[in-house]
Amino acid sequence: MKVTVVGAGAVGASCAEYIAIKDFASEVVLLDIKEGVAEGKAMDLMQTASLNGFDTRITGTTNDYSKTAGSDIAVITSGIPRKPGMTRDELIGINAGIVKSVASSLLEHSPDTILIVVSNPMDTMTYLVHKTTDLPKNRIIGMGGALDSARFKYRLAEAMEAPISDIDGMVIGGHSDKGMVPLTRHATRNSVKVSEFLTPERLEQVAADTKVGGATLTKLLGTSAWYAPGAAVSGLVQAIACDQNKMFPCSALLEGEYGLNDISIGVPVILGKNGIERIVEIELDEAEMAKMKESAEGVSATNGLLQV
Amino acid sequence: MKVTVVGAGAVGASCAEYIAIKDFASEVVLLDIKEGVAEGKAMDLMQTASLNGFDTRITGTTNDYSKTAGSDIAVITSGIPRKPGMTRDELIGINAGIVKSVASSLLEHSPDTILIVVSNPMDTMTYLVHKTTDLPKNRIIGMGGALDSARFKYRLAEAMEAPISDIDGMVIGGHSDKGMVPLTRHATRNSVKVSEFLTPERLEQVAADTKVGGATLTKLLGTSAWYAPGAAVSGLVQAIACDQNKMFPCSALLEGEYGLNDISIGVPVILGKNGIERIVEIELDEAEMAKMKESAEGVSATNGLLQV
Amino acid sequence: MKVTVVGAGAVGASCAEYIAIKDFASEVVLLDIKEGVAEGKAMDLMQTASLNGFDTRITGTTNDYSKTAGSDIAVITSGIPRKPGMTRDELIGINAGIVKSVASSLLEHSPDTILIVVSNPMDTMTYLVHKTTDLPKNRIIGMGGALDSARFKYRLAEAMEAPISDIDGMVIGGHSDKGMVPLTRHATRNSVKVSEFLTPERLEQVAADTKVGGATLTKLLGTSAWYAPGAAVSGLVQAIACDQNKMFPCSALLEGEYGLNDISIGVPVILGKNGIERIVEIELDEAEMAKMKESAEGVSATNGLLQV
Amino acid sequence: MKVTVVGAGAVGASCAEYIAIKDFASEVVLLDIKEGVAEGKAMDLMQTASLNGFDTRITGTTNDYSKTAGSDIAVITSGIPRKPGMTRDELIGINAGIVKSVASSLLEHSPDTILIVVSNPMDTMTYLVHKTTDLPKNRIIGMGGALDSARFKYRLAEAMEAPISDIDGMVIGGHSDKGMVPLTRHATRNSVKVSEFLTPERLEQVAADTKVGGATLTKLLGTSAWYAPGAAVSGLVQAIACDQNKMFPCSALLEGEYGLNDISIGVPVILGKNGIERIVEIELDEAEMAKMKESAEGVSATNGLLQV
Repeated sequence: MKVTVVGAGAVGASCAEYIAIKDFASEVVLLDIKEGVAEGKAMDLMQTASLNGFDTRITGTTNDYSKTAGSDIAVITSGIPRKPGMTRDELIGINAGIVKSVASSLLEHSPDTILIVVSNPMDTMTYLVHKTTDLPKNRIIGMGGALDSARFKYRLAEAMEAPISDIDGMVIGGHSDKGMVPLTRHATRNSVKVSEFLTPERLEQVAADTKVGGATLTKLLGTSAWYAPGAAVSGLVQAIACDQNKMFPCSALLEGEYGLNDISIGVPVILGKNGIERIVEIELDEAEMAKMKESAEGVSATNGLLQV
Repeated sequence: MKVTVVGAGAVGASCAEYIAIKDFASEVVLLDIKEGVAEGKAMDLMQTASLNGFDTRITGTTNDYSKTAGSDIAVITSGIPRKPGMTRDELIGINAGIVKSVASSLLEHSPDTILIVVSNPMDTMTYLVHKTTDLPKNRIIGMGGALDSARFKYRLAEAMEAPISDIDGMVIGGHSDKGMVPLTRHATRNSVKVSEFLTPERLEQVAADTKVGGATLTKLLGTSAWYAPGAAVSGLVQAIACDQNKMFPCSALLEGEYGLNDISIGVPVILGKNGIERIVEIELDEAEMAKMKESAEGVSATNGLLQV
Repeated sequence: MKVTVVGAGAVGASCAEYIAIKDFASEVVLLDIKEGVAEGKAMDLMQTASLNGFDTRITGTTNDYSKTAGSDIAVITSGIPRKPGMTRDELIGINAGIVKSVASSLLEHSPDTILIVVSNPMDTMTYLVHKTTDLPKNRIIGMGGALDSARFKYRLAEAMEAPISDIDGMVIGGHSDKGMVPLTRHATRNSVKVSEFLTPERLEQVAADTKVGGATLTKLLGTSAWYAPGAAVSGLVQAIACDQNKMFPCSALLEGEYGLNDISIGVPVILGKNGIERIVEIELDEAEMAKMKESAEGVSATNGLLQV
Repeated sequence: MKVTVVGAGAVGASCAEYIAIKDFASEVVLLDIKEGVAEGKAMDLMQTASLNGFDTRITGTTNDYSKTAGSDIAVITSGIPRKPGMTRDELIGINAGIVKSVASSLLEHSPDTILIVVSNPMDTMTYLVHKTTDLPKNRIIGMGGALDSARFKYRLAEAMEAPISDIDGMVIGGHSDKGMVPLTRHATRNSVKVSEFLTPERLEQVAADTKVGGATLTKLLGTSAWYAPGAAVSGLVQAIACDQNKMFPCSALLEGEYGLNDISIGVPVILGKNGIERIVEIELDEAEMAKMKESAEGVSATNGLLQV
């Protein structure tokens, strides 16, 4: 099992780290365009192996895609953050160019790989990969809902003073502050609805905190977060690599599901050896469906900025 | 089991991360003087809990030591790196002030805690804590040899194309490029001497690469490394917390061992519930002993710069 | 952290095994009255340490309770199975004598220990320990619901062809085929109600299969099961040892909760460093409450056979 | 990654258990000829998944080899123990028939599988599989040295009051009380020779205790041990499945290595995705070589009892 992670920034390095710690892959290749960074992080991570007890080999490369040949799964974290004075259109144009080029380079050396897209705006970048490669839709997966759900569970646990492992919950919809749809009605502690433990007001606060989860961290850290994004990716990668058939909310190309078409957006999917084994349509009530529709409109508007 | 990590820089955060992942502690407190950083990293790390499967609670605080009260073990990673134009003496003076103050604040709220010192120059900062607190010597441990040994094993594994888990080896002496004493004569692959697999020249190269291990990473990363330092600390912390009686090379106050006195320097120690349960004196040959003596002289010289 | 497991039968040995594998305890003592068995299983288990990667020390003793001194947590698995021709009263009388004596021996050497009762009939044996020791009620926990819930989740996962880690669900009530109350109305896959995936008939079948879970295994194995009972105990032990505040259905002494009094029966509890930190009263509908009441009557009837 | 374990006795079930706990395989099939036992143990083990945190699916089957189709690795634990009045020749004849038939059935459904032989007398049964299948020699591996080495490390750790994870050491030669060659001269604690910690007499005692390690357990348990054998197999399986290139002493077909030919006996090998990637010839001194030769003579004598 060989996994490539493109982009050795903080998120990419965390992806590599947690994939290695889970110890199911034989090899993780970390690739970056910046000279030496991927090699350095790979080396530092390998020096944890004797202390953290894993046998996965992590190697780094400065942009040499031949080293990624034969990857079973590849993760794309590349892209730039929005800079002062840059318009949203300009940002999307630049990241679209990067993601398209990375996907193409990956597929050249690993034609059978499954692609996990992390680059932002994530749903749109995932859509772009669908549009610009001829991969079957099960082999393109956008990572967003797994992270947003982790943040949702964190906030629920915090509100109930419960351990996070007791909590279950999903966030679907677009991977953005406005687009996220935290399914508070479904969330549970050990299968007991969270509404038995929290007031409606507190639950609304939890949902609101979840939606600004990324922004809250950026404010505290002075940069966007990386641990949980990396951990979320590692969960998806293991589900595919070990054919676990686990359910995660992921950005998937919809063809009628949830009443949506020609869009990639966060919905529950089953992940197994073929990538997205199937999309799961759960019952949403009217309010949830309305939020989902609104979220999809936002994603579609962003997709419209793509020049594909 | 409560553990405090002072300093939420990259190393401190990695300490907290790996302690949590090993899942033996109930609580890890991350403290930093910089507003929000410890809270942000703690939050990001907690959002990995549902994905990485641990139940340890990580919390962050901006310099509120009352939150660290009752810590069983505390790790000091604080300190500044050397800045352009700063003399070595100035650096040591500044870091000595920081470490002394941090140790004092920790002990005020956790009088029974065991202290692990990571701040650089590490052997000297460990010595400083011995000199400026009245803790018994078993409760002050300098982290350096565990990291250097991890880097030594990495280089040995690389040279033999072996997995790191097959390799055993120790680095003793001072925690600096010049001070390190990699024990190549002892190192093994599955108990077989590495000299059966590598030429003397290759082994010398491995030792040389090990000694500049930190510098090599700094060059690649543009900043000093953090994953392996954090992992090394987490190993020491678990050995103490779970009373494992494992052997690690650590900076310990010597009173005659290895012919040395009134110095804290890297030697093999047994770590258990009391911290350093005992120092292990292994047989060194003449060359190794000479290197150890030279290393000690370097550490003593640095100690001489302390104003204690 | 020291844990004692009394009874080195298949269940007791599995308890010790999984506690060690979770690697948070420094020491596990396995005690049995049968000469050599505890020592043998401890030795065999310790020989897995280098392969399974744990540092917990497991030791065995033939009935020498002085070796258990200072245990933080103790697990009682002792007791005999019902033999041909033995009446239920006789069985209870014999096991009551064993459990009472074991509890007394444990408390003599570890007066501050928390007791986990596994011996059958479990709810009655837990009640017996309440009646015959002066321990506060938070320090006596009956293991049953955690096992029954694991079996419930297994059956739900099987019915949905889902991985077990996606499933959440609880079984409360008495720990017997008739007494168990599987909360099918609450059970979820990734927070989505299982009723979205399974028909009412299939769900009823799942509940029925869960209730005869132990009997089904006994039929297949020719003896009662041991892996899952041991794993369930290890989960409770870690929740207490690491102060996790996790929610498990456990047999707890009720004083008005769920309308019940002077009975120990399976209800959701929060487990932390004090044992049962609190009982959680979740809303049951009329049918569930009726089943709970009926279950309690069964347990009380069995309690009535005790001579205390 | 699919793994089959043939034989759901205590050893086979432990193999399945530890492979699942290591959580790298998608599926483990446990097969036994005795009606229901494999199904029962698989079910009990699956009911630990929610508590032990793995996603590997374990299934059981009564002798239906079609369920094992497409296995990447298969483990043969089948065979009978010696019964009163049975001659050694009779025993070997019976087990040879069983192993031959199992290997043939496995290969029929999984022609590309790698075979791990655990059945006793192990070296001879491994040799038999070489002789009666046309598999390349790298795909037939006898498990014995990994277990004997685990026992050796246990005894060394016990003698030094050290944790087992600090110890390294290997046992080569035939997998029998008389045949084992514990390499005490090589064994280490954290790379330091054990002779620095133990007297020659104590080391001889350790070697003697190691050689009767199985018998000692049989005496204590009333049956042969199972935990460590299962754990040893799981280590080999993961090394192959995750292409770890780890070194283990295994029974391998020798063609001149160690001066031996046409024999399968315990020597250090590198395990990776092709099974035995290569045999490692380490330097043995005269005494060790003499023991190895004597051990080989014993194995050859047993091989002579085969009717192939």
